[in-house]
Amino acid sequence: MSSDEVLVESDGPFAVITMNRPERRNALSLSHMRALTSAFRQVGETDATGTVLAGNGPVFSAGHDFADLAGADLGTARELLLACRELMETIQSVPQVVIARVHGLATAAGCQLVATCDLAVATWSAGFAAPGGKGGWFCHTPMVPIARNIGRKRAMEMALTGDVIDAGTALDWGLINRAVPPEELEKATRELLERATRGSRRSKALGKQAMYAQLGHPEADAYTYAVEVMAASSQTPEAQEGIRAFLEKRAPQWLA
Amino acid sequence: MSSDEVLVESDGPFAVITMNRPERRNALSLSHMRALTSAFRQVGETDATGTVLAGNGPVFSAGHDFADLAGADLGTARELLLACRELMETIQSVPQVVIARVHGLATAAGCQLVATCDLAVATWSAGFAAPGGKGGWFCHTPMVPIARNIGRKRAMEMALTGDVIDAGTALDWGLINRAVPPEELEKATRELLERATRGSRRSKALGKQAMYAQLGHPEADAYTYAVEVMAASSQTPEAQEGIRAFLEKRAPQWLA
Amino acid sequence: MSSDEVLVESDGPFAVITMNRPERRNALSLSHMRALTSAFRQVGETDATGTVLAGNGPVFSAGHDFADLAGADLGTARELLLACRELMETIQSVPQVVIARVHGLATAAGCQLVATCDLAVATWSAGFAAPGGKGGWFCHTPMVPIARNIGRKRAMEMALTGDVIDAGTALDWGLINRAVPPEELEKATRELLERATRGSRRSKALGKQAMYAQLGHPEADAYTYAVEVMAASSQTPEAQEGIRAFLEKRAPQWLA
Repeated sequence: MSSDEVLVESDGPFAVITMNRPERRNALSLSHMRALTSAFRQVGETDATGTVLAGNGPVFSAGHDFADLAGADLGTARELLLACRELMETIQSVPQVVIARVHGLATAAGCQLVATCDLAVATWSAGFAAPGGKGGWFCHTPMVPIARNIGRKRAMEMALTGDVIDAGTALDWGLINRAVPPEELEKATRELLERATRGSRRSKALGKQAMYAQLGHPEADAYTYAVEVMAASSQTPEAQEGIRAFLEKRAPQWLA
Repeated sequence: MSSDEVLVESDGPFAVITMNRPERRNALSLSHMRALTSAFRQVGETDATGTVLAGNGPVFSAGHDFADLAGADLGTARELLLACRELMETIQSVPQVVIARVHGLATAAGCQLVATCDLAVATWSAGFAAPGGKGGWFCHTPMVPIARNIGRKRAMEMALTGDVIDAGTALDWGLINRAVPPEELEKATRELLERATRGSRRSKALGKQAMYAQLGHPEADAYTYAVEVMAASSQTPEAQEGIRAFLEKRAPQWLA
Repeated sequence: MSSDEVLVESDGPFAVITMNRPERRNALSLSHMRALTSAFRQVGETDATGTVLAGNGPVFSAGHDFADLAGADLGTARELLLACRELMETIQSVPQVVIARVHGLATAAGCQLVATCDLAVATWSAGFAAPGGKGGWFCHTPMVPIARNIGRKRAMEMALTGDVIDAGTALDWGLINRAVPPEELEKATRELLERATRGSRRSKALGKQAMYAQLGHPEADAYTYAVEVMAASSQTPEAQEGIRAFLEKRAPQWLA
């Protein structure tokens, strides 16, 4: 499943997808994005319950690969951005809980990855930025998920200044779930992923997908949808097993 | 107005609705949700300016009553969830300012109640959780209002881990308005409710209803609506009295 | 460009628009709002990269002028509120980065101005309130942008209590970007504006406008829009210059 540039490993019930272009600061070239999307989809077919997204080298990911973009025509630019969107939507639609393990700088589409993952843990020395506005392009698409994680004034500040915020600020603003010392990063990521994957895998898969489907809609519309999803899912074997186990004060046995 | 399971009391200008099924941890059975909805509606017809939602026993509310759900068919599950939605929408549509007074654990639909009330005050020892994902179901509908109070990464963490967050975290994330020591809970709740009900009752009623109507829509749509509501309400006796009293530097006299 | 009531000054690459009705606490009368809108539009035609919105006198702005509203009929009220909306939408649509420099109290539509500006810096002694609910009206339209900067429970608390929150709370809730001592207000505002206006002016103008256009929509709709904006803007000379300068490790030269 692995290629040289995207490593896919198994870690017990989890998969670890590692961006492995350290010399390119894990820049998201078209082929790299497609390889990542493919890796998430392939893991999605397995019975893994969670996926860690990590990066090799000093940087988590520097975003789009400018080598692809110098002189690129409109069709090429759209192809890149649509591949990027596809990667982000794949992360939100796979059945696994996806957690970003951020050991270094995450900028532009790299920061978009962090904002898109279901959960994120970072070291104190990590940094987050949407620097397009400092250059001549603007982080339009990275700001779609970033602004849906943090408040509007903060999103404007990140997008307009392009400045790096540190992990403490990212934690305070709600862009990440934990900030830890570097030596605890792997353990803290795994621990949060373990907590986030308890229970039925199939129920969690529907849960995360349904969350993204209802967010961003008016509350009444969200209820109309969520009531039907919750009613329908009450009929699944895993919901009934969970309910019966609770009433019978015993540990549930999941089939899926 | 009270039943054994839902107590409705008067406290000066306020009503206090108390969930009184301590032995069931104030679980939201179909009949309990209907009794609560009915209590909110009946108080809604009175001239009370505010309503406290409280719970008896060690727990604020444990959410849906799993005894109702074991073996329930789709129709029964929908009936329960639609009754739950009706309770939540009733809280947002009654003319009173509704404040949750959270003395203990609020989980699943119990946490949904806290997220739905206009305001919430909790003791430091209270806790908040959406634990469905740890069982075989998922807190799809509780996450509708919970995710509209807190950030996306935090909502995902609550929904996926099912872990209890304490009152300090709930305050930091914006799920509640105050966290106080247990012995100050009643006083702090009443004080915030007093502050929130100053002014014309009718103006506050329209105010809270209009807030929920405009939230969650694109800003331009929200303006289109809010401009008309605000223009129309400028014509009410209470708005004109407020404006004149301000200009004449005297205390206003409210008719409603 | 200036009138007595609205001062427009140049400060290097920036414009400073100052509300100058100190004796009326910079209340937003119909003519004052129109003069402000006009000032933002006129600056919009210049090559200024940023605009500071400031106020003279002890108060930043006290919101609508109640002298306009006593006895006002529905048509007059609508005219005022539509002029107010136009001012807010102008601030979001001009090409400059707009930053509020808040030295004192900002209430009702005055607080709406702060919430609407792209960025905001305040002194520790500033205060923010939506007090309409304490009178007989309600801050329906001010709450449109205020609630889009802060969380729902906090928005409800501001709107229902009408209480003033201090700058530290406003910073914590995300209504402002910086809170500083009074003697550092000008410097801190200018410094943040300088950071926010680095890069191509044209790219920033599109960036801020596109941010407001995508916020508040479901994420999938926001992507559909943002992908096209980002692809199209990749074709601009400024984007290509930024990309080439990055690859060539030199400072970019902006034409616009």
